[in-house]
Parts: sequence; structure tokens; C-alpha cells
Amino acid sequence: MSSQNKKVNETNTQEIEVEGHLIDSMILTKIFDIIMDYHGDFEVLEFSIGKRKTDYSYAKLLVKADSQAHLNQMLRELFRSGAVTPNNIEVQLVPALRDMTLPDNFYSTTNHSTSIFYRGNWIPVENIMMDKQIIVDPLTSRAFSKPIRQIKKGDLVVVGQLGIRIKPPERPREGVGIFEFMTSRASSEKPSVSIVRKVAEDLHTAKMLGDKIVVVGGPAIVHTGAAPSLARLIQLGYIQAVLSGNALAVHDVEYALFGTSLGMDITTGALTQGNRNHIAAVNEVLKAGSLRSLVSQGVLTQGIFYQCVSQGIPFTLAGSIRDDGPIPDVISDTIDAQQHYNRLLDGASIVIMLATMLHAIAVGNMLPSNVKVVCVDINPAVVTKLIDRGTAHAIGIVSDIGTFLPLLVNELETLEHPPI
Amino acid sequence: MSSQNKKVNETNTQEIEVEGHLIDSMILTKIFDIIMDYHGDFEVLEFSIGKRKTDYSYAKLLVKADSQAHLNQMLRELFRSGAVTPNNIEVQLVPALRDMTLPDNFYSTTNHSTSIFYRGNWIPVENIMMDKQIIVDPLTSRAFSKPIRQIKKGDLVVVGQLGIRIKPPERPREGVGIFEFMTSRASSEKPSVSIVRKVAEDLHTAKMLGDKIVVVGGPAIVHTGAAPSLARLIQLGYIQAVLSGNALAVHDVEYALFGTSLGMDITTGALTQGNRNHIAAVNEVLKAGSLRSLVSQGVLTQGIFYQCVSQGIPFTLAGSIRDDGPIPDVISDTIDAQQHYNRLLDGASIVIMLATMLHAIAVGNMLPSNVKVVCVDINPAVVTKLIDRGTAHAIGIVSDIGTFLPLLVNELETLEHPPI
Amino acid sequence: MSSQNKKVNETNTQEIEVEGHLIDSMILTKIFDIIMDYHGDFEVLEFSIGKRKTDYSYAKLLVKADSQAHLNQMLRELFRSGAVTPNNIEVQLVPALRDMTLPDNFYSTTNHSTSIFYRGNWIPVENIMMDKQIIVDPLTSRAFSKPIRQIKKGDLVVVGQLGIRIKPPERPREGVGIFEFMTSRASSEKPSVSIVRKVAEDLHTAKMLGDKIVVVGGPAIVHTGAAPSLARLIQLGYIQAVLSGNALAVHDVEYALFGTSLGMDITTGALTQGNRNHIAAVNEVLKAGSLRSLVSQGVLTQGIFYQCVSQGIPFTLAGSIRDDGPIPDVISDTIDAQQHYNRLLDGASIVIMLATMLHAIAVGNMLPSNVKVVCVDINPAVVTKLIDRGTAHAIGIVSDIGTFLPLLVNELETLEHPPI
Amino acid sequence: MSSQNKKVNETNTQEIEVEGHLIDSMILTKIFDIIMDYHGDFEVLEFSIGKRKTDYSYAKLLVKADSQAHLNQMLRELFRSGAVTPNNIEVQLVPALRDMTLPDNFYSTTNHSTSIFYRGNWIPVENIMMDKQIIVDPLTSRAFSKPIRQIKKGDLVVVGQLGIRIKPPERPREGVGIFEFMTSRASSEKPSVSIVRKVAEDLHTAKMLGDKIVVVGGPAIVHTGAAPSLARLIQLGYIQAVLSGNALAVHDVEYALFGTSLGMDITTGALTQGNRNHIAAVNEVLKAGSLRSLVSQGVLTQGIFYQCVSQGIPFTLAGSIRDDGPIPDVISDTIDAQQHYNRLLDGASIVIMLATMLHAIAVGNMLPSNVKVVCVDINPAVVTKLIDRGTAHAIGIVSDIGTFLPLLVNELETLEHPPI
Repeated sequence: MSSQNKKVNETNTQEIEVEGHLIDSMILTKIFDIIMDYHGDFEVLEFSIGKRKTDYSYAKLLVKADSQAHLNQMLRELFRSGAVTPNNIEVQLVPALRDMTLPDNFYSTTNHSTSIFYRGNWIPVENIMMDKQIIVDPLTSRAFSKPIRQIKKGDLVVVGQLGIRIKPPERPREGVGIFEFMTSRASSEKPSVSIVRKVAEDLHTAKMLGDKIVVVGGPAIVHTGAAPSLARLIQLGYIQAVLSGNALAVHDVEYALFGTSLGMDITTGALTQGNRNHIAAVNEVLKAGSLRSLVSQGVLTQGIFYQCVSQGIPFTLAGSIRDDGPIPDVISDTIDAQQHYNRLLDGASIVIMLATMLHAIAVGNMLPSNVKVVCVDINPAVVTKLIDRGTAHAIGIVSDIGTFLPLLVNELETLEHPPI
Repeated sequence: MSSQNKKVNETNTQEIEVEGHLIDSMILTKIFDIIMDYHGDFEVLEFSIGKRKTDYSYAKLLVKADSQAHLNQMLRELFRSGAVTPNNIEVQLVPALRDMTLPDNFYSTTNHSTSIFYRGNWIPVENIMMDKQIIVDPLTSRAFSKPIRQIKKGDLVVVGQLGIRIKPPERPREGVGIFEFMTSRASSEKPSVSIVRKVAEDLHTAKMLGDKIVVVGGPAIVHTGAAPSLARLIQLGYIQAVLSGNALAVHDVEYALFGTSLGMDITTGALTQGNRNHIAAVNEVLKAGSLRSLVSQGVLTQGIFYQCVSQGIPFTLAGSIRDDGPIPDVISDTIDAQQHYNRLLDGASIVIMLATMLHAIAVGNMLPSNVKVVCVDINPAVVTKLIDRGTAHAIGIVSDIGTFLPLLVNELETLEHPPI
Repeated sequence: MSSQNKKVNETNTQEIEVEGHLIDSMILTKIFDIIMDYHGDFEVLEFSIGKRKTDYSYAKLLVKADSQAHLNQMLRELFRSGAVTPNNIEVQLVPALRDMTLPDNFYSTTNHSTSIFYRGNWIPVENIMMDKQIIVDPLTSRAFSKPIRQIKKGDLVVVGQLGIRIKPPERPREGVGIFEFMTSRASSEKPSVSIVRKVAEDLHTAKMLGDKIVVVGGPAIVHTGAAPSLARLIQLGYIQAVLSGNALAVHDVEYALFGTSLGMDITTGALTQGNRNHIAAVNEVLKAGSLRSLVSQGVLTQGIFYQCVSQGIPFTLAGSIRDDGPIPDVISDTIDAQQHYNRLLDGASIVIMLATMLHAIAVGNMLPSNVKVVCVDINPAVVTKLIDRGTAHAIGIVSDIGTFLPLLVNELETLEHPPI
Repeated sequence: MSSQNKKVNETNTQEIEVEGHLIDSMILTKIFDIIMDYHGDFEVLEFSIGKRKTDYSYAKLLVKADSQAHLNQMLRELFRSGAVTPNNIEVQLVPALRDMTLPDNFYSTTNHSTSIFYRGNWIPVENIMMDKQIIVDPLTSRAFSKPIRQIKKGDLVVVGQLGIRIKPPERPREGVGIFEFMTSRASSEKPSVSIVRKVAEDLHTAKMLGDKIVVVGGPAIVHTGAAPSLARLIQLGYIQAVLSGNALAVHDVEYALFGTSLGMDITTGALTQGNRNHIAAVNEVLKAGSLRSLVSQGVLTQGIFYQCVSQGIPFTLAGSIRDDGPIPDVISDTIDAQQHYNRLLDGASIVIMLATMLHAIAVGNMLPSNVKVVCVDINPAVVTKLIDRGTAHAIGIVSDIGTFLPLLVNELETLEHPPI
């Protein structure tokens, strides 16, 4: 579609406002980008720029479109990027006609801090996650983000795009450790040792502050010989919850009991007995009834899940179609597992994703954009895919988990017990 | 451990036999390799080699070990590679003491054709899959491969390693199309157009012969714009079952209804509305109740699952922790989903894996080694990982599914309607 | 360094200006980002924003630093991003003391359009490339970008950072085909067929306009069976120059003469004779004396370089340490080869990079940021690495060259001869 | 082509022999594979198998083909895999008609130990490399492997395929450290810490034995912050030669002088001044005249090349088309550089390839198959590509050089100074 010769009907216009710290003019750039992408037009009505770093800036634009549909398309994106209408407009609510069914015009969330204008007040949407819906409880005047599966008949669902205010995260300021150190671009050409040190410092600070750190991990942690390092992190008190699947637990038990991972001897690299030890590990857990019992019976005496049980660190293992077994600790219903994941992520300050695509992306979808995310994987595609989902506080590290974690533990032990 | 100066106690020895076509001397190489890997020793007792391609060869070796444990270790691997004891030894069975619990000495299967010597006869193990157990039904004298989850109290489980005969697949002979054309090594530096043509010829031959072809696919099929090509393959009668997850179905519906995939317009590449259309597609299926209803209501009129429903092609969608929704067609219990996958794979002659790591590896674990597998992915790691699991009939193609599938459909249409 | 409590000495300040189209407020964002990254401070002195798309905006800031060194660091980056000093300051020149030697304070170029304020006028820097130096010819008052190797004793070299004005490329506007269609992010999850169509349309338009299109290619073009497609592109008049190395030419000749590539039969995939045919191809060219002679002797009658010679398309083959041979057409001196590359790139409007990391990055370093670049590679790392070097007109396509090029040729032939 | 009904003319046959240790029956498997691949036929004439590990086995086969051309094709491959004719046949020699020109029927080498039967004796081919030619000096009765570039008019070049005996490397036996520990398959799912330890042990043993260790490295060593680790390896006496290009040296100097790599501060990760420091490093070397002078002038006081110069470790830097500068130490003529590489590789026992595709593949082509090769790269494609070229003593490690090298140095220092 060419923008030449198009008549802008003056009814296809809408005033919008943007404000933020001066250094968040990034948001304004985004606003202009959207209008250009949609081949729309605009006029600047007001513009005041803060004089200093900490000052707010403000812009009011008149957005012009070819048609009402064109305008709506643009506004949808503009509002999602932080623009609002100058006057407060009451949010629109429509009751769900059935369980698990949305009104056609439902609003789909971002992972940014969101408020709705309801009964004359801006109220925050609680538990915000991306690609969910907003439900309003008229009794308490509270608003919640809910997945479609949990929608009940009669729930008041936010529809349309008015009366909703998004606050995209501001650019991280000075002094936030690894999150300032790195931009979000994933690359293997980064100074690994410096990165390890910065991550260690951030984890150490978080521990001092009592922040919640959650690990999301895949079985390559065990394959690459890094299980003792993760176990040590847990033992040192750096991890407050572990999210994973059947494979990590079975590999961890296999390694703890037999010294192998999928039949490969982790110390000698020798391949033995195919995957028999893998199934034998499953059998041991099935016999004991759970990982916890395996520990209490004195069979499992080391490793990641030994430490979880010993230190009282909660974990959730989500089932997947490729599971062997699975062990009884696995929540084989994936809808159920998602809710358990959600619960353990609640209040997380830092989430560390280690060598897992499936669980990392699942968790990425559940996090508000202000949670700090560190993703370590040897495959740049995993890191890029995850980081792209959009948080200002995510960093991707393309590295070998088998060498990264031991170095990280070294750094943390030095921070805990600095050499005199 | 050095092999020098070690005393071989003559009781730590075992005679083994290997036989096969001359050209399968690969098996004999494997036998020697295992003995060397374990630092064992041997003596050749008999050796007769067939004179021609079609003749059988035979070898009898005395395997020597340092200890009984050492011998057992070696024998376990030797038997898994096709060696047998010279005299037939009755297989050992132990009843399971509880549901989902194996005797400690349980036997873990390969994915190769397997027989057990039971009550004086070699009987085949039905439904062989890798890393499972063998259960014998004493009433019918039949043997089955079963996952640990399905073991019931009292099931007679094969233990130890005697009385079991493995037949590794023979090297593919002449004239088997793409499977002769390529070795199993995954590489992006292969002549793509020739490969497409060879795959097309194999699929065409399989269709002529009435062989069962199963597709295992991931959502990148839709992202890369290849959904119409897969839909066309189904319409042309090349696919007899589809295995996937929630994402492929939702993306397919999103594209069919809105022309977007995760909000990206597939024709223009424009990004619109974040993932809203994705959730809207979920909503449509939830409203209709199922993909089938969405078709019968006339809402879904094109795409992969439209063709499945129209052509009566069965499909199974397995749940995963990262699902949005999921739609009602998804089997959210992963243990249940595995059984459905198994059912659709039964009798498959060719399995085509398209841009999916999770489901491809799950399916790889379920297939006997004589099923032909074609795996296409742009990520060499997926292809390598899958093909490594070991079948003589698997090929990996590192290519872009978005260009590969359209070219494949072109070739098939030419084969169906050769230009005059 | 913390920004708390730091005293800003008022002498460590500098006024800067930025201006551009409103939609290029991206530049302003970059300015603020740099000041934050360096923990500097600022005050907005003037700010006027254009009211409409085509209006210019203007900002004047006072940048504040902790020290003169701190200020210089910031200014260096600010100037590189398009900021200028409010008043015109004469550029500083220092003569080179020796050949191939720069004054310590030399200025290093970006790949953006650059001018210097010399003798009271802004004069453009000709032949701009990144990471080079600026030399001024006082007789003609012209300025040139030169690599350090070509600096001669006495050359007047631009030093410091004043009197230099950078014009970063503006965001591409509407209607520029593939370059509008895609953002620069490399991903394999893009609609391949749509991308192929867009690239075809851009190439077709460029051909109609008489624009110069240059191909930079690696040997995987031949391995993947795409040599006939590239040959066809040349034959159809789409390519005005070819840049590559020894390997592409030798593989092309090997395929044209023997039907193999590194001994692999491109049609059957069979491996024959190791790399002997590769060396035999080298031998044929050495016997003939050059690729041109091989064509004129009637030995080479098809393929990429046959088409180049037949159509009079110039090519440069740069030597590399891994060359077999090399053939006489190869310029084995890499410094010399760079100059030949430069010559063929002169005036290029579109550069297509096909499956080559080495040559693509070399060429990327030679291009001004307003040349359109299309980079196709199956390895996302190559695409990312290249595109990161920074042009607003570069797109990366993660695809299989062996399927991409045949589809591209199909599209172009349809555009040339639309079906009636 | 089907093998059915084809008439084997008895003149299209050839007797061949294979012998080797029993455990090298792998060679025999290869022989059968080749005959099947070519759709040939055979008869076993004699077969004797050694009884024990250390015994030799022997096979004599009659190979049958459809035509003389078919037979020649098969024999070419069979001879390359270690088969010989039962009777010794004098090698055929043809003089080169011109410089750099081979007789059409020239023989192309493998990288395995090779002998020719010349004037009644088997004489070894000296300096064997893959894809080269064999030249015989009739005066001294010595044979050499030479690249086509170095062929002089009148050189006696081996042609055809008779009178040549190849000895493929035997499978590594017990106790060879890392080379026994790992198979050659490249995977990121290996126990990294154990691998680091094994590599350290092998290097330590090699140093004790006075073996020559050569490093081939790319600039990512500096980017990832591993330069101090490689410098330390050199300082500790583990490296006897360094092969690389302009980029590693310039990055190393940039880091040593300015603490940055391509403008990125290795300690803080901050990006400063674009690539200016990179050019400034080039300038410093150009001013000094060479890396050696930069050290002797006291400017370069740390890093990889400082250690090379200080410890008297020779290095060769090969030019490439993407070089900035290059510095005077670079050999910009690639043909010349190849000869320097060859010289430094002479007598190497272990070659370590670190994060470089270009130089690693160049060096891989120059090495006989009995040199041990360790290749570390984060990109599995590099590792696979290199290792595929075929030596029985090569291992590929998919890891992050930035974490791998520091851990390796830790291990080596522990081996040098074991904790009491």
C-alpha cells in the first residue's frame, strides 16, 4: 500500500500521549516506528522534554489513518508500546459466555506492568504474564491476568484496547551488575571469565538481599558434568526453587547412583550399557516412591535433587512426551504443571536458565518483564529466541554449561570466603 | 587400567558366536571394538567366511576377562551388538513385585529386532522399542516390549542377559532411494535439489506400495510459510498420520484464519498485534470444541489440520509445558499422549520429522530400527542428535523447511503428473 | 564507577546538536544511551520537534563529564552517532611521518556518510568505508577514506574528533521491497517463500533500473547443488560482478567437468575418488592458464564462471591459506586482492552474500552503510555477525542456499515471463 | 543400476589383499562397503584370521566388475582404503610437461602413511599430506608428496593406482588419554570438566616427553577473554609453535595495550570507540616494524605474542582478505604462507585448534593422519567439518574457549605443582 494520494478522513484520527524519563525516548522512537510501519501519518500537538536525566518528558500526537480499521490496527500497537489516550476512558468488560471461552474482541496482555481504568481509577493488573487475558473482579475492584484455560463462565474479560495503560520497563540504569554489563545480544564472542564474575557478583548481591533466585535447567547440566556445580550452588543457598522436567532428575539420580549419564561414564567418558542405567535410575525412584523418599532412605546421597531435598528447596518437574518413566515426582499433566511452575516463580527476582529450550521458553512466557533473566546455552538460537521475547532485564550467554558452572562456583566461593 | 600383566582367570571367559552376511562384518568389527574398549582379551576359536555377497559368515570367539564382573560388563555390550552364546540358554524371568517396579537385574532393550529363548524356542519380542523392558506372557508364550510405567505387579520381566538374541539391522543394500543416496551424517553441504528429488521418489514409491508414512512436525512449518506445502502433501495422499503438539495446530489455525503466525503476517512479514492472533486462534478452537468441529462448522477451510480432518488422517497432539491454551484436541497428560503416539506409529514404514526437536526425539525413542526416518531441520544439532540414536535407515537433512517443502511438493506433483 | 557524589567540573562540558527527520528520533535515543552508558550527565538546552513526518527536528544538549578525559570519551561516541558541535570547527590534520604509519590521535571512520569542515567548508569524504582513516588532499580540497596500508609519508591525516560530521542512514521508508519487509534480525523462523519472492522483486527492479548487483559467494553454492541457479542468474543479467575465492571456482569447474563437488556426485550424492576430481579441476585450469582460456578452448561450457566469462562479468578470486592449487586466476596476495574487491564493489547498489563467512565479512567492511546487503546462510552466526556490523539496509536470511537459489530463479523467471 | 542379471565379464576382475591386526577388521568392513557402494561383486579366495589381539589377519578377494571402467573405479577406492594387489607391481611415473601441470592420470594422495613400489622396493612417501601428488626423485630413489603449485617441468609424477600401498591408521589402543576417552563425534553434551582434565594430562605427558605441540588459533581467543590463558600455556612451555592470522595478533596487541578487543573492554564488556583501538594496535605494530620490535621496545609486555617472542616460540601469521592492516608480520601471499605453515607443522605430535575455522581447515589439510588433533570450538559445524577430514587421532570438543582455556590452565598448574 502506498501512502501517496491517500485521503486521511479526519474522523480516522486519535490523539495519543506518551511520557517517560528523557532517556526513555526509546519509547517515542517506537511510537514513530509503528506509525511508519503501518504507513500512517501524524502531527505533533505538544512536546515538552525534561531538561535532566531524572526529568519526565511528554508528547501528544495526533495519529492519522486511512480508515477506522487502519486506525484501530495502529492504536493497538501504539497502546501496547506505552501510548495512552489523553483522557481516561473506562475499560470495557464483557462476561465470558462459557468456561475457557473468550469474547471475540478480548484484550491480550504484554508482559509489562499494566493498569486498567476501572470505575474511575487506574488499578494495576496483578500477576501480569504475556499473552494472557485480563479479568476484573467487580466485588473487590481487582484485576488479574489469566490464561484462557482458567477463564470461567461469567468472568469479566477486558476487551478492546481503551482504558489500558502499559508501562514498558525503563532502560536499566547504572550499577546493576551483569545486566548493565551486557546488552541483550547473544554472542559467543564475549569475555567469558568477566561474564562469570559479573554473574557471580549479581547472585551474591541477590543472596545478601534475600532475593529469590530460581533455576530452570535441562539434562545437559548432568551430561556436561556440571551437576556437582549446580548441587553446590543449592547447598550454598543461592537457589530458592528448581524448575525442570523428568530428564534432569533421572540423569541426576543416574549420575549420583551409578556415575553415568545416559550410560556415559562422566569421569571416563566411556559408554556403558546403552541407556540401561537411565532406566535403572527410574526404577530406583519408582521403588522408593519419590525423590524425597530416595533421600530419606539413604539411597540418594549427592547431586542436585539430593541438595534440593536436604535444603528444603522446592522443585517442579513437568512431564513431556519424550520422558522415560517418568518418575512419580513428575507432573505428567502439562496444564497442571504450568500452574506449579507459576507458583514457584512467584516473587522471583532472578531466573537462571541453564541449557534447556523447552522449559526456558515456557518460563519466559510466565515472567513479567521486570524479572531479571540469565540464560546460558551453547546454542545461540535458544538464547536469541528466549531473549527476543522481550524484557529489558534479560541477558543471554552463549557458553558451555559444563565449564561455565564450575567457574561460577569458583567465583562464588571466592566471594563467600575472600582470600586474605 | 592397563592390560599388561593381568592374570586372566580361565573361569572369567565365555564363548560367543556371531554370524551374518559377509558384508555385515561391520558387526564383527563392533565385537572386537567392544572387547578393546573394555580392555578384555579374546581368542578366535572358529571362523568361516562366506565366499559371496549372499553367503553367511560365522565366528566363534572365547572372550576373556579379569573378573566375573568384568566379563559381565563385556558380555552385556557384546550381546547387545548381536553376539550370542553358542548353546541356547533359557531366558530368565522374574515377576515384578509391584506396579511400575522392575527387578534390579532387569534387561533393557535396544531398538533392534530381538528374540528370547523361552521354553525351548526362540520367540520374537513384539513391538520392540529402545530402553524398554521385555515381558513374557506365559499363557500365550508371547513376549512384549513395555515401558516401566506399564509394568504391572506379577508381570514376568526378562532379567540378566542370557537367552536374548539381537539382530542389528543389516546395511541397506542397493536400490533403496534416498536411504542409499545419503549416509547418515548430517551436513548442510549436500546437494539439496538432488536430495529433494530422491525424497520425492521414495515417498512416491511408498505411496504406490501403500506404505504408511507418518509426519512428526513442529510449528516452524507454519512460521517458515510451509504450511500450504504440508497441507498439499496430505491432500495428495502422502501422509497417513500426523504427530505434533499444541503449537503446530494453533499456528496452523492462526494462519488459516488470520494469515499470521505468532502475529507475523506470513505474506508481508509484518508483525501485528503481538501474539494476540495466536490466542484468538486458541479461542476459536475452544469455542468450537475441537479442530474437527471447527472444520465441520465451516470456519477452518484450509491448512494442515483442515486437510487432516477432510481426508480422515488421524493426528495426535501432545501437551507440553510451554503450550498456550492448549486447545481441546491436545492430550495434556504426557503419559497418555505417548500411548497415542505409539498407536499412530504402529505399522509405519517411513517417518518424516520436520523442524521439531521435542517430538522428533520422543518418536525416535519409539521406533524400531528398521523404520525409515527422514529428519529435516535447519539446526544440525537436532539432526545429529536424532540420527545418533541409531538406525541404519535414518537420514538427516540440514535445510530450511520453508524452501524444502515447497520444492518437495513441486517434485511430487511432477511425479504424479509427469509433463508430456 | 558510581555516578553518586561526583562533582561535575563545569569546564568538562560540551554543547552538541542533533538534527534529523522526526522519525529518526532513533538517533536521539542513541545519544541519550551513550551518555547513560558512560555515566555522564546532560541538560537539554533547546529542543524543537517537527510536526510532521517530513519535518526536521532539532536538539541542543549540554553534555557534562567528570573530567576532560571522560568528556572526550563520550564526545567520541556522540560524534560517531551523528551529534555535532553547534559551531563549525576546522578539522585537524597531521601529516604521516612515514609510510603506513598514523599519527597517534588519528580518526577512525564509520561506514556512514561523513563530511569534514575544511578551510571553512563541509566537504564530503569520498569512498567511505569503516575503520579506515581520512586523508585530505590540500591541492584539490578533497577528502578520502584510506586503509592504513595505503598511507604515504606526508599524507594529511584527520586526527581528533572535531570538525567531522557523520550522517547515520535514516530508517528505510515505505516501499523498499525486501528491505522494508524484514527487520535485520536473523532468524530461521521466517516465511521463506515470501522472502524469496520479495528478494526476486527487488532484484528485478534493480535490473530494470540498471543498478549494479554484486554477488559474494562461497563453495557451498556448488556443494548444495545451487551452481546452475547462480549461473542462470548471471545469464539472465542479474549479476554485474562476482567476488569469491579459489574454492568456488575450483568446485564450479569440478562440477562442470566431472559432475562432482569435492568428489561427491551432485546428482547421486555418491562419493568418489576422494578429492581427486578437485585437484584434476585445478590441473585443468593450470593447463589452460586461466578460467577464460578454459572457456575459449571449449573445455568449460557451463556453470558460474562459464557464464561470467561468456557474459563478460568481471570477477575477483582472493587467495586464502586453505586453497588447493590455487588456480592462476586467484590473487594470492591478500592486500592486492582487497584492492581488486574494492574496485568491483565500486558503485554497487545491492550486494548478495551467499554462504561465505570469510568473504562476506571482508566485503562488509568495505561497504558504505547505504548499500543494500542481502546475506543468505544456513548458519545464523554468519548472518548475525555480518548484519551486526551495521547498516540500515542489510537483511539476513537463514536458509539453505541449495533450496533458496532454485526458488529465487523460479521467481525471477516468472517475473521475466509472467504466465499469460 | 541394478545388480541383477548383469554379466560379469571375467576379465573385469582383480585380486586384492588386505591384512592388519584382527581388531582392524574395520578395514575389511570398509572393503566390503566399497564393493557394495559400487554395486560390484566379489569372491573370497583366502581368509585367515589371527587368533589373538596382536595377531595379523589376512584376506584375499577376487573383485568383480561389469566393465573395466567399473573395475577401475572400485579399485581406486579399494586401494585408498588399504587393499593392495597380491603381487608387487611397479609404480607408474610420468614426467610433468610443464611447471604446475600434472599428467591427466595423476595419483592424488590420502593423508595416510603411503609407500610406492619403485625399482623393486617399497619406498615410503615422505611428508605425506592429503590431496597432493607423489613425485619420485630417480637419483636418490626417494618419493615426496607435493602440492600442484610446486610441480616443476620434468618432475616424475605417480599416475594410475598400481604400485601404491596405503596404511590407514590403526584404531587407537589402550591408554592414550583424551584420544581414547572420546570418540571423534563432536557434541556439546560431553562431561566438560573431565575432558579438560584429560586434555591437560595429555599435554602434560607430551611436554614431559618433549613432543612438539602446535596451536592454531583464531581471534575469538581474545574476544572471549582467554588470551591470558593461552599466554600462560606458552609461558609454561606447552606450546612449540603458533599458527594464526592477522586478527589474532592485532586483537592480542589491542588487548595488551588498551584492554579492549574490537573496542570492547574485556573486563567490563563496555563498547568503546568502535574499532578505533583495533586500528591503533595495527598502527603501533606498523610503527615498531614488527611484533618482535614491539616487545624489544618495551611496548608490548604481556599477552600471547609477547610470550611467543619472549620464549622464542616461532609463529606464522597468514594473510586473509578480511585483514585490517595487516601488520608487517603477516605473510600476505597465501601460497607463501602455506609453506611457512608447513614448516612449523613439521614434526608436530599434537595440534590444538582453538576457535578458528579458516586456519583449522587449512592445517587439517596439511597433517598426516597420525598427528593427534584436538579441536575446540563453540560451533559444532567447525568441529564436525574438521574431524570428518579423517584421522583416527582427532577429537572435537564443542565448548566455550573463554571458559575452556582458563580451566585447562588451572588443571595444568595443578599437574605442575600438585597440592601437597
